Amino acid sequence: MMKKVVGIVGLGLIGGSMAKALQQGGKYSVIGYARRLATCEEALACGAVEEAFTDPSEVFKRADILVLALPPDTSGVVFAQEAQHLRQGTLVTDVASTKTNLVAKVYAHLPPGVRFVSVHPMAGSEKGGFDMAKASLFERCTWIVLQDSTVACWRREDIEELSSMGESFGSRVIVLPLAEHDCFLARISHLPHAVASMVTRVAGNDGDGDLRLRLAAGGFRDVTRVAGGNPSMWREILMGNRQELLGALEALESEIRELKDFLRHEDTVGLENYLARAKEIRDKFSAL
Amino acid sequence: MMKKVVGIVGLGLIGGSMAKALQQGGKYSVIGYARRLATCEEALACGAVEEAFTDPSEVFKRADILVLALPPDTSGVVFAQEAQHLRQGTLVTDVASTKTNLVAKVYAHLPPGVRFVSVHPMAGSEKGGFDMAKASLFERCTWIVLQDSTVACWRREDIEELSSMGESFGSRVIVLPLAEHDCFLARISHLPHAVASMVTRVAGNDGDGDLRLRLAAGGFRDVTRVAGGNPSMWREILMGNRQELLGALEALESEIRELKDFLRHEDTVGLENYLARAKEIRDKFSAL
Repeated sequence: MMKKVVGIVGLGLIGGSMAKALQQGGKYSVIGYARRLATCEEALACGAVEEAFTDPSEVFKRADILVLALPPDTSGVVFAQEAQHLRQGTLVTDVASTKTNLVAKVYAHLPPGVRFVSVHPMAGSEKGGFDMAKASLFERCTWIVLQDSTVACWRREDIEELSSMGESFGSRVIVLPLAEHDCFLARISHLPHAVASMVTRVAGNDGDGDLRLRLAAGGFRDVTRVAGGNPSMWREILMGNRQELLGALEALESEIRELKDFLRHEDTVGLENYLARAKEIRDKFSAL
Repeated sequence: MMKKVVGIVGLGLIGGSMAKALQQGGKYSVIGYARRLATCEEALACGAVEEAFTDPSEVFKRADILVLALPPDTSGVVFAQEAQHLRQGTLVTDVASTKTNLVAKVYAHLPPGVRFVSVHPMAGSEKGGFDMAKASLFERCTWIVLQDSTVACWRREDIEELSSMGESFGSRVIVLPLAEHDCFLARISHLPHAVASMVTRVAGNDGDGDLRLRLAAGGFRDVTRVAGGNPSMWREILMGNRQELLGALEALESEIRELKDFLRHEDTVGLENYLARAKEIRDKFSAL
């Protein structure tokens, strides 16, 4: 039996790592699209893909499973342009961090007979690009498969195939309703990212910034690590989920008010209980 | 020549690590105080200290250099009680994360002929206690020596001795005016800590919290790591620096307002510039 062809649109950190992990698994043939010729050559040279193209239409034409792995808005634009090339029976998926806009665009351009199920591998790094891609990126990560009960453009087997793919990468698979994705992600990923950027600016964006940075230690390093991520990719992610992110920022503002009250009133018991509850939650996360 | 005796008051992560690093260096004799007998026995058994006491007065009596290494308020209380036991010519130091209250208390109880210079080793972990102590804790960390031009209870040689101690531990030594310490620390340590606790609560402190935590990944893990720290120690640190921390929290509120404006007005250029500036600062920190 011929292997199914997985076509990966975007060979950055996530797309490149999927290509490497899929090649290692041996179950699929992998082809890929990258805008830059150098990325295509690099992906071919290290055997991550069997064929690579700087024209996405080739990948759209030949994929049995098409993976959109560009930043969310960019994936939407490319999909709208190229969806006409998809064959009947192709399964489309994406790995975007924010779903609302991209999924709406996919549904708007999905040809009849083409299926779609969104996934979100909860893996990444502040250092992006194919250079950083590795087959082990998804090990022990959560791999979210998103089930959309409002449409009929997918089959139970699609959920199973994409779940098996995550399992074969060493991820823990969780199936969630698509409608809940962006709301959850706002609080566990997009708010933390925004906070890292804000705390970095509070520490370093004035005349004393350089001296402060020389004093800063491991706590600062970790709290702000993700602020080193790609600004254009994260702009697409945060802007794409702006309604939910605004809600999460308001929840943070409410926490700040609570904390300021403890400090202003020298409420040591209140402050210690506040910190103790945060530790309790954080320890639960560590134990997962 | 007899070795000078360093007396470490508090054998937690920082005090215990100093004891181990000093023993390894061989320049000083090290004795220590811990409230719990088990900690004293453990420190003796592993050779971190030559003698250990559950009564701080012994350490105050015998130290040539006394290191206050309990949480800041606790160090202040113990110092006020025991300072009468200090010998003339003893150099007192402390390793607290917040200085204003503790230093005022030290000055108020410092006997004539006893000297004081504060230091701050920028090292730590969310996991505290002697069990986590290690001689290498201070390697490649910043070791801040705080010079107070408003008092005459120290000599140039004290700054040099404490600076050499930091260098011998592998730290980068920076000498700063004491008056600037708490203001700097609010933005590089205390605000990041508060933010880690707040983000943890926003993610996990409601009915959907457990599911959210199961989805969370490396970004959330790092942004919130320090929220796992000891609540009572961090309550002393944050409350001790409440004025400066309130200012830092207001700076964060102002960043949040700016970010919300970009999101509300779909200002993609503004948002990307905002994130790009944060990345620029964070990359500068990484390169230090």
